[in-house]
Amino acid sequence: MTTLTPDMLVSGIRQSQRDEPDSGILSAVNHGFGRKGLIPLWTGEGPLQTPEFICQAASKAMFDGETFYTWQRGLPQLRAALAAYHEKFWPGPFSAERFFVTGGGMQAIQVALQLLADKGEEIVIPSPAWPNFPGPMRMMGVKPAFVPMLYNDRKWSLDLDRMRDSIGPKTRAICLISPSNPIGWVASREDLIAIRDMAREAGVWILADEVYSRFYYGPDTAGVARSPSFMDVCDPDERVIYINTFSKNWAMTGWRIGWLQAPEALGPAIERIIQYNTSGTAAFMQKGALAALENGEDFVEMQIEMARACRAKVAGALGQLNNVSFENAQGAFYSFFRIDGLIDSLGATLRIIDEANVGLAPGGTFGPGGEGFLRMCYLRDPDSLDEALVRLTAWLRQA
Amino acid sequence: MTTLTPDMLVSGIRQSQRDEPDSGILSAVNHGFGRKGLIPLWTGEGPLQTPEFICQAASKAMFDGETFYTWQRGLPQLRAALAAYHEKFWPGPFSAERFFVTGGGMQAIQVALQLLADKGEEIVIPSPAWPNFPGPMRMMGVKPAFVPMLYNDRKWSLDLDRMRDSIGPKTRAICLISPSNPIGWVASREDLIAIRDMAREAGVWILADEVYSRFYYGPDTAGVARSPSFMDVCDPDERVIYINTFSKNWAMTGWRIGWLQAPEALGPAIERIIQYNTSGTAAFMQKGALAALENGEDFVEMQIEMARACRAKVAGALGQLNNVSFENAQGAFYSFFRIDGLIDSLGATLRIIDEANVGLAPGGTFGPGGEGFLRMCYLRDPDSLDEALVRLTAWLRQA
Repeated sequence: MTTLTPDMLVSGIRQSQRDEPDSGILSAVNHGFGRKGLIPLWTGEGPLQTPEFICQAASKAMFDGETFYTWQRGLPQLRAALAAYHEKFWPGPFSAERFFVTGGGMQAIQVALQLLADKGEEIVIPSPAWPNFPGPMRMMGVKPAFVPMLYNDRKWSLDLDRMRDSIGPKTRAICLISPSNPIGWVASREDLIAIRDMAREAGVWILADEVYSRFYYGPDTAGVARSPSFMDVCDPDERVIYINTFSKNWAMTGWRIGWLQAPEALGPAIERIIQYNTSGTAAFMQKGALAALENGEDFVEMQIEMARACRAKVAGALGQLNNVSFENAQGAFYSFFRIDGLIDSLGATLRIIDEANVGLAPGGTFGPGGEGFLRMCYLRDPDSLDEALVRLTAWLRQA
Repeated sequence: MTTLTPDMLVSGIRQSQRDEPDSGILSAVNHGFGRKGLIPLWTGEGPLQTPEFICQAASKAMFDGETFYTWQRGLPQLRAALAAYHEKFWPGPFSAERFFVTGGGMQAIQVALQLLADKGEEIVIPSPAWPNFPGPMRMMGVKPAFVPMLYNDRKWSLDLDRMRDSIGPKTRAICLISPSNPIGWVASREDLIAIRDMAREAGVWILADEVYSRFYYGPDTAGVARSPSFMDVCDPDERVIYINTFSKNWAMTGWRIGWLQAPEALGPAIERIIQYNTSGTAAFMQKGALAALENGEDFVEMQIEMARACRAKVAGALGQLNNVSFENAQGAFYSFFRIDGLIDSLGATLRIIDEANVGLAPGGTFGPGGEGFLRMCYLRDPDSLDEALVRLTAWLRQA
């Protein structure tokens, strides 16, 4: 017998894996998952299961035998449908060759990081930021160079000078999540042009997470109800990689299917990375995703309306509290609110699970500038959101 | 406009990604995929679509709304079923906590590599080897330290002394695929003990790919029809990580669902890596996998019998050729055969696609010792295998 202690086993893994903290979102979920009556507002998903027509398309393909290995870049049909979808909302034209199907938006991020950045290099990213960007960076030894967002007078803004100053010789990319998870902030066209220009000047990539582009409550962009995009201001063949997913728009969070948009020239490298990470995405799932693109617009619009109504509810309820501060932000479907005097957001999150039976995410897990805040995903059916807000405001009043 | 040329774009990606060659398997597939009448024996998959009872379980779960985020380590039910499955074939007991569901065996490899090895380190691996081990290693800057297998008198063997000599200060793990893809070689119990002991002595990990353990044509191991396993000779809490998949046994190649077995102490780190790679595997797919484990034994045994019959056919057909040499190996479902005088296996593979309409994989892509060989996946329905062998032997006779 050479049985090793847990500590000895863990000491034998990669340093960066030992050092990586747990995601605070996951810590909250693991604390409260399955608890009776709990209203889960901790992760970025709505209340609706995947629409039946999407399940039908996937199920049919599965029974029809689309259960073999398939194109590593994704089904040509789906890639063409992605191009057509983009032409409806963003300035094109878009070639199907620019699109790569991935095992979720998370896998798209992994592919992009593996493509662009190596150990010892850096990626600039405004903070607070979804931990699923800096987490995988740290795991591969890439340093997230955080640019703290400014929160003044209940309004978030990005300090472009500070972002420019954070670009150095080791910088490989600027990562921007807009609309932002967790803060809901939306980059203006002017912000995007400024970031584009600093990326061009430094010769670095832009990693653009535009997952929440349709969940946008501001004025139309170029006549379309969506947030401003790097696609509005960048050329097709410059150093920009877009991350996206079927998860949010079409209530497919659990499917793990997303996509990446990149210059065609990167196709062979991206295909290799996909091959050596997941070896592609199930063809039958892709048929579900194809149905989503072809027949899912009504569903997306219904979800956006639901989000808009929920957003108003949350602003109304939290706005009555003297010890809570937040921006009623223009994008995504999160409320990121600060509680006066809060210094341990994970502790508060666990207490709110225990004492109010509401699941939130701790602000501290979103990096510099996030501690003291909590994140609530408000995309929820109205009744359970009402109930969650009753419980939460009661808890916050005595906090 | 700042449009960049393709070369300029590619020059901006990670060095290891620029240097990585295409998988020769993928090159063959991309050359021949969709060609009329082509008999595809290039990838490791059989002819049968996923059994209906598995599709039914997955489909039901999908329509029942199991379409939300789920446990990052996998459904507790499925992890318990994996433990029970292992207790039927390998010496246990097995705790469900040792099992982690992944997006295919490939993703299990990625998780293991990200867990164990860092840029500049090395992993020892006998060669020829499935390129999907060394490929992702190189991508993350980990050097595959190849131990060339010996091929003498139509028989493969592993030089244990040479393996021991290839372990150095940078070595993090020994990777063993047994039964081997591509050569079908099966490590004996004595080989496994020797490798275990050298790993113990050096304090390095064992990365055990036992995907093909059930496709085994040798004498029973410990009274069970399966290949010898590190589970026979290692303790549960030593540095061994097992890679496995639902792909082969249950005809689920296209699903992308597999599992990893590891000491429980690694659970939190593995969960983080899964979170930041794929954020878990679709719950409805896991329900399909659960059905496979619970009701799929007849199907597995039927496939093994089919493989055994195909193996005999291939040995019979290729055995008649004077310019072809191979071992009728004891495991997996590949024939890895050498053609006298062949020096460009990828070129031959492409010609065989064009001229014989049979899809094979080039031996050169499997690393040192593989050039001059071709790999054929012989798990095929008897009629199309017969036809493929007619075409192939005709081509080989004039080669």
